[in-house]
Amino acid sequence: MDKIVTFGEIMLRLKSPEHERFFQQPLLEATFGGGEANVAVSLSILGKQGVFVTALPDTPIGEGAVSAVRAHGVDVSFIKRTKGRMGIYYLESGANQRPSNVVYDREYTSISMAKPGDFDWKTIFNGAKWFHITGITPALTESTAALSLEAVKAAKAAGCTVSIDLNYRKKLWNYGKTAAEVMSGLSKYADVIIANEEDIQKSLGISAPVDVTSGKLDTNAYKALAEIVKAAYPNVSVVAITLRESHSADYNGWSAAIHGKTGFYVSRKYEITDIVDRVGGGDSFSAGLIFGLLEYGDDEEKAVNFAAAASCLKHSIPATSI
Amino acid sequence: MDKIVTFGEIMLRLKSPEHERFFQQPLLEATFGGGEANVAVSLSILGKQGVFVTALPDTPIGEGAVSAVRAHGVDVSFIKRTKGRMGIYYLESGANQRPSNVVYDREYTSISMAKPGDFDWKTIFNGAKWFHITGITPALTESTAALSLEAVKAAKAAGCTVSIDLNYRKKLWNYGKTAAEVMSGLSKYADVIIANEEDIQKSLGISAPVDVTSGKLDTNAYKALAEIVKAAYPNVSVVAITLRESHSADYNGWSAAIHGKTGFYVSRKYEITDIVDRVGGGDSFSAGLIFGLLEYGDDEEKAVNFAAAASCLKHSIPATSI
Amino acid sequence: MDKIVTFGEIMLRLKSPEHERFFQQPLLEATFGGGEANVAVSLSILGKQGVFVTALPDTPIGEGAVSAVRAHGVDVSFIKRTKGRMGIYYLESGANQRPSNVVYDREYTSISMAKPGDFDWKTIFNGAKWFHITGITPALTESTAALSLEAVKAAKAAGCTVSIDLNYRKKLWNYGKTAAEVMSGLSKYADVIIANEEDIQKSLGISAPVDVTSGKLDTNAYKALAEIVKAAYPNVSVVAITLRESHSADYNGWSAAIHGKTGFYVSRKYEITDIVDRVGGGDSFSAGLIFGLLEYGDDEEKAVNFAAAASCLKHSIPATSI
Amino acid sequence: MDKIVTFGEIMLRLKSPEHERFFQQPLLEATFGGGEANVAVSLSILGKQGVFVTALPDTPIGEGAVSAVRAHGVDVSFIKRTKGRMGIYYLESGANQRPSNVVYDREYTSISMAKPGDFDWKTIFNGAKWFHITGITPALTESTAALSLEAVKAAKAAGCTVSIDLNYRKKLWNYGKTAAEVMSGLSKYADVIIANEEDIQKSLGISAPVDVTSGKLDTNAYKALAEIVKAAYPNVSVVAITLRESHSADYNGWSAAIHGKTGFYVSRKYEITDIVDRVGGGDSFSAGLIFGLLEYGDDEEKAVNFAAAASCLKHSIPATSI
Amino acid sequence: MDKIVTFGEIMLRLKSPEHERFFQQPLLEATFGGGEANVAVSLSILGKQGVFVTALPDTPIGEGAVSAVRAHGVDVSFIKRTKGRMGIYYLESGANQRPSNVVYDREYTSISMAKPGDFDWKTIFNGAKWFHITGITPALTESTAALSLEAVKAAKAAGCTVSIDLNYRKKLWNYGKTAAEVMSGLSKYADVIIANEEDIQKSLGISAPVDVTSGKLDTNAYKALAEIVKAAYPNVSVVAITLRESHSADYNGWSAAIHGKTGFYVSRKYEITDIVDRVGGGDSFSAGLIFGLLEYGDDEEKAVNFAAAASCLKHSIPATSI
Amino acid sequence: MDKIVTFGEIMLRLKSPEHERFFQQPLLEATFGGGEANVAVSLSILGKQGVFVTALPDTPIGEGAVSAVRAHGVDVSFIKRTKGRMGIYYLESGANQRPSNVVYDREYTSISMAKPGDFDWKTIFNGAKWFHITGITPALTESTAALSLEAVKAAKAAGCTVSIDLNYRKKLWNYGKTAAEVMSGLSKYADVIIANEEDIQKSLGISAPVDVTSGKLDTNAYKALAEIVKAAYPNVSVVAITLRESHSADYNGWSAAIHGKTGFYVSRKYEITDIVDRVGGGDSFSAGLIFGLLEYGDDEEKAVNFAAAASCLKHSIPATSI
Repeated sequence: MDKIVTFGEIMLRLKSPEHERFFQQPLLEATFGGGEANVAVSLSILGKQGVFVTALPDTPIGEGAVSAVRAHGVDVSFIKRTKGRMGIYYLESGANQRPSNVVYDREYTSISMAKPGDFDWKTIFNGAKWFHITGITPALTESTAALSLEAVKAAKAAGCTVSIDLNYRKKLWNYGKTAAEVMSGLSKYADVIIANEEDIQKSLGISAPVDVTSGKLDTNAYKALAEIVKAAYPNVSVVAITLRESHSADYNGWSAAIHGKTGFYVSRKYEITDIVDRVGGGDSFSAGLIFGLLEYGDDEEKAVNFAAAASCLKHSIPATSI
Repeated sequence: MDKIVTFGEIMLRLKSPEHERFFQQPLLEATFGGGEANVAVSLSILGKQGVFVTALPDTPIGEGAVSAVRAHGVDVSFIKRTKGRMGIYYLESGANQRPSNVVYDREYTSISMAKPGDFDWKTIFNGAKWFHITGITPALTESTAALSLEAVKAAKAAGCTVSIDLNYRKKLWNYGKTAAEVMSGLSKYADVIIANEEDIQKSLGISAPVDVTSGKLDTNAYKALAEIVKAAYPNVSVVAITLRESHSADYNGWSAAIHGKTGFYVSRKYEITDIVDRVGGGDSFSAGLIFGLLEYGDDEEKAVNFAAAASCLKHSIPATSI
Repeated sequence: MDKIVTFGEIMLRLKSPEHERFFQQPLLEATFGGGEANVAVSLSILGKQGVFVTALPDTPIGEGAVSAVRAHGVDVSFIKRTKGRMGIYYLESGANQRPSNVVYDREYTSISMAKPGDFDWKTIFNGAKWFHITGITPALTESTAALSLEAVKAAKAAGCTVSIDLNYRKKLWNYGKTAAEVMSGLSKYADVIIANEEDIQKSLGISAPVDVTSGKLDTNAYKALAEIVKAAYPNVSVVAITLRESHSADYNGWSAAIHGKTGFYVSRKYEITDIVDRVGGGDSFSAGLIFGLLEYGDDEEKAVNFAAAASCLKHSIPATSI
Repeated sequence: MDKIVTFGEIMLRLKSPEHERFFQQPLLEATFGGGEANVAVSLSILGKQGVFVTALPDTPIGEGAVSAVRAHGVDVSFIKRTKGRMGIYYLESGANQRPSNVVYDREYTSISMAKPGDFDWKTIFNGAKWFHITGITPALTESTAALSLEAVKAAKAAGCTVSIDLNYRKKLWNYGKTAAEVMSGLSKYADVIIANEEDIQKSLGISAPVDVTSGKLDTNAYKALAEIVKAAYPNVSVVAITLRESHSADYNGWSAAIHGKTGFYVSRKYEITDIVDRVGGGDSFSAGLIFGLLEYGDDEEKAVNFAAAASCLKHSIPATSI
Repeated sequence: MDKIVTFGEIMLRLKSPEHERFFQQPLLEATFGGGEANVAVSLSILGKQGVFVTALPDTPIGEGAVSAVRAHGVDVSFIKRTKGRMGIYYLESGANQRPSNVVYDREYTSISMAKPGDFDWKTIFNGAKWFHITGITPALTESTAALSLEAVKAAKAAGCTVSIDLNYRKKLWNYGKTAAEVMSGLSKYADVIIANEEDIQKSLGISAPVDVTSGKLDTNAYKALAEIVKAAYPNVSVVAITLRESHSADYNGWSAAIHGKTGFYVSRKYEITDIVDRVGGGDSFSAGLIFGLLEYGDDEEKAVNFAAAASCLKHSIPATSI
Repeated sequence: MDKIVTFGEIMLRLKSPEHERFFQQPLLEATFGGGEANVAVSLSILGKQGVFVTALPDTPIGEGAVSAVRAHGVDVSFIKRTKGRMGIYYLESGANQRPSNVVYDREYTSISMAKPGDFDWKTIFNGAKWFHITGITPALTESTAALSLEAVKAAKAAGCTVSIDLNYRKKLWNYGKTAAEVMSGLSKYADVIIANEEDIQKSLGISAPVDVTSGKLDTNAYKALAEIVKAAYPNVSVVAITLRESHSADYNGWSAAIHGKTGFYVSRKYEITDIVDRVGGGDSFSAGLIFGLLEYGDDEEKAVNFAAAASCLKHSIPATSI
């Protein structure tokens, strides 16, 4: 069973029920999620051995996160219990013209205080085929940025394929460095880059020849953009680009493109008209892509189609894939 | 008050909440439903006297089913308590590209072990105007097939109009006979056949001159198909065909056609874009049709329009009509 | 902070969960709402000082209504506790072709028995900029009609701008006077009239040169209609007309027009395809309009656009704005 | 199957969840109950044919009450749909030193406006063995008092055994007559009187030689009290007295005594330390007593023990026996 | 209406349902509470004008706290929105031998970063009769300790009666000073001290001549203890001591003693055998005492009895008094 | 980490909410539990490596059971997916004088059809220290009895300590052999026997010199009983006897005794007055005992006290320890 390691954040997700605003009822749906945790879970559901590495507080709340991930078969034996708190995001689900609303509560979390040397990467990557990370973790603090770099280097040294979901978030990156400064360093160790157009621009500092404001997806432009990335990062063999069209909170178009070793392919496009939950949609794409590239070898078109389909289905499931 | 008898299955329906996968929460919505039970309930709601006949275990679970049906005014005095268990179906509600998922748990149920001689049909049909059955019950076991035949014969002998909703289910029919073998025998006693194109082909062994894969509904073809059925079963005076277009888990087109005593009519078509629950949609059509044929006499166009409208509305109501 | 007074009804709203029919589960969602209460709440949320005046029974149910309004910052100090009961409306939420169903239970309520002299309007309007009332309260009883007239006169005397949401309800007006008889008297004190085409016809007795049955909204006709209103009521400087297109229980088109001091403007139109809750949509329009007219001065186009947008967003929020 | 008719009130019961005060959550548990309805349901559950007679509004709320009763097998065919509203009682469940809190909302209900001549008692009592009524219905209005008298007379004329649960409620009896004036008239037609000490004093005007303030139950005193009742009402052959010791909202002692045809018997006493729901406890006693007297003939000790046990068990079941 | 100001903490309370451990269900009950907020709410419910002063983040979560307090009529106009997060406590409700479990998440909260000068005490105390604070706020950080001292000084200067609920919490006081160092300074400005035996020992550094480990409450010892406090703090005219006997998670004995201006009084004792929620029990005692001392003047026995009764009742209500 | 293997049943537990009878609400709480699964989970929570072996259907329902166990860290890698259904037990929670009600639905389950040879015991017991089984599995069918014997033999051969919780259930043992016939054979391979008095009598055929009907627990008698067991089964070194006193559905006394290698010890006794859920109480005793015997070596008194305390705490937690 292929072993895939992911490293990063898992948070308590506190969501008001259905389409309610916060506190219309005195209760919050309480699940756990985070980019890298979601990917590990999805891969375990797909039949791979996901391994999720993070730092959590040694409290019943932290253990709740561990159980949630372990329930799906993810290996949680490398999760560390450290000082700090559990990260939280509060979520209101949008509808029609009202977009979803997220309030992050990430100060002083265990993961944000993790630092190089905290994890025994050599043991962690022993027998692993793949390592996946996102742009969230390096965006938290200077120490998590350094730790992320340590991790990708160790993964490469252990012979893992390395994938990075750039996942640019404007509200983060508050510790003095830009996304481009940090992510360009990490990307030098990547085999696979997953991104949308904005991610590439903000996280890699590559100006896109794509007019995303035109309202029409121009696949040629995306092909050109992927080529620029590959030129700038010769270590990168696969660039996967997700293409979301947000018509309303309920209705998105969803597809993806891949510029891989064998060519450029655009997936089937899905009209998702009655979205149940789009949080984690990108993570299920990453998981689907990793699965597809592992399973289908050089059939990269099949891989991107699998990833787009997996992600499309995720939009029909409440809560993240956990 | 017209008395309409239905005979068949009622099961405990265990559904995960809203659009959740199984066990995202530790609870299941627990209602009761089954083709023939649903028809009896719908007719009672419409103002007729539904009578539901079945076999149930003598447990609080079986009594729960009885109460659920009785609450709507259905006569439950002929339900027998026997050995065996309560049948169950587990249901996950689909959304968008993810279809609903049903797990049946029907082994060793009370109804599946019922056999000819178990019910006093003479008393049951005393004063009844109509008898309705579906293709589910005869599909369970050899003994329920024999019992179903006994029932339709007794109904005819008692002067009832007999309707059969063919309702072909591929996963059933495991006891050694094909649907066509059994249902063709039952249909010889039918006045009204309710079906879709696949039902007719699989349950009556009549090859349809309808290209259902074309993606367009061709009413002429359905007219021709109904004529073939009536030619093969001269006892059948009405063939009603439901026409469902499944665009997604949330969006179906819905209409119906009738080939009756006075001609061939196609109902108004409904675009049901935000389906709440489609389980039981066919049963509410059957109930609507029986009601319409009883109420509107020879105005069979009105009857099929009533049935299509009743069934359309059912798609807006969670759980079956019970 | 601008102080806006509203006077009228607040009821206990008892709704079956999600899209269920009544009593499929043994519970009812229990919130509070009413046209004038909703407007006071919305304005408080928008940053104004809403003041809500009503009569309620001196029971925990009445106090529940007070708390619900006060939670949003509305001034409740002028609410009176009197004999009588709490009004109730039972609500089933429609879906697709099935419209919502409301059962009113308004007999013998505290507000319906309120009468002229019950409230100290002079104190209430002290420092107030605006007074808002709807056509519901005068429709309840002869004494609430007289009280409503007393209120608008006192508001004008105190220098308030007066707005009336005509809000015609066929099921009311049972005490011997027609809506037109009463509302035309009230409208003589109005500065702002809010209505749809039917409201104007039924509440003001003005026959509309608008063919609403054509299925297309003709803005010129609405302009003409507004002009007739202003001609008949020279005191009215602003006529705002809401334009709802009800395609199904889930899908409405929504926009509005205003004929104000500076001209005639039509708002942006919203396609609301996945309605969460349309009850209170008109009230949020009124609140948005009052806010817009206070904030944007002579930019009446901005005001109507703000009102239409606020109301559009309301359709995405369960329960009324309370 | 013995047929037992009950006549009276059924209300919508709106209860805050668990031990919450009203509106801590925006929902209310919604079930149906009422003294006479509860008795009919309990008897049907025990295997008798309960028949419940009342007047209800012709709304989905009224139909909800009908379905709730019918689900348990009660004959609802004599329920009338009339003008008026559905009665409501709002309930907060007490705990420890905090007693339960009930807010009644009974103005203008259908049942309160029922009057002599509204029901065809001859048909209703055809084949019936027993008629049961409580002191609630005659306490509502002058017309329901007259109707109650009409009913007991008709029941006697039809050969029914008549039982009256005096059930004195201080908050009722507002229409100008005292309980004693009305109930003494009704009791002249009773065979069985069910009461506690206060009921006898207030409803029959019989001063009790029982010091209920002493905190100890003195069975001799209860025997004496029963004898006085029987002396005053020679038609009464059975006086049953319920003995509740309210230690706290959670803990009651519960027993009963009977002064019947064969002697005076005191039931086993139950310490009910973790009360789930005491509403309807008296009604289940009445049902148990009727059942016991019908089943056990002259073994009146067995009957009172059955009634006390049935009622004890009711305290463990949420909502009334419906 | 007497105006009583409280200053301190309000947190989001996230509780697993009923007696569940965390995350047995994916939801948490979400209410708001905190010692000083609870006191302001209770006093407003009792008919006084509570004023609650705190610092909260400018997010929907912070606004949720404001609404929760305002719903009960508390004046929230002096609450500041500042940087920092919302404090949280996670709660599992114990049962029998399993005690409740609380996980605090208080790092980096808005209130913990508040400092002298942040609040305009002169305006806040204008017209106020009473100021109440607890030992929680000064325990958070050095700056909240300084701010607390600033507040009590300002309150005294404004002529307020000052009460302090010592409320010692071992897990707090991590910033370098002991409770005794800080609280003794604050207590020099107090008129009323509320405490249990441990509070006095830990927060005032007064060694108690009370053997609390004996398992029996010795009121003489408590009288002696109160006298020592009053000797050490001549400014203190009232010492109130709460006496809780924790038999199990469900069963506590509850009473209190007061050493006031007129003498030493012990309240009635309550056996609370079926506790619904004991969180906030001490706060309702404080509120009851303040109310009692304001209402009953020199009848300090009545005041302490009122406080004990109010607090006893609080144990029957889920969530804090908010 | 000590590895403990358990083998047996896991079922879907469908419980009506709180103290409700079945179907008062249309939902059932859905969790998973079974004697041996519970023990594996409890041991994993206590820090051991539980390994649970069973057969389950290859459906989402079966996978739900796997996830539930895995969430707690149990090794599920030896669970087989086979034909057959998921076992179910329906549960109503009792209160006061009303006992809990369980309806089993165990026909045709996967586990009941498992047979010798289905599991690779050699691999399963590799590295294991302990094997635990209960009397449920051998009671299901002839083949599970044979399989249970195969398992204990293999466990002994692999050097495991073997514990058997006799757990006699009258409703089982329907396949032609008595409990005594089968369990005496299994017990020849046991090191530890866990039982109550009835279990020993029914499962081992040993007549107990204990008068359990006297209502008083006589520890000398239990010591004598344990000695008889050890005499009959010289391989057994530890006999643990659980002592439950069922005062009501809410209140049990709970303690245990052990006759081990070092002597006879009686645990502390717990009065559990407000039981939350007693299902699984015996399983948590078994888990606590295994943990205690492994951790505390020859301190068997400490082991039995740990087991009794663990089990006491379980009564405060809803659902089984899963």
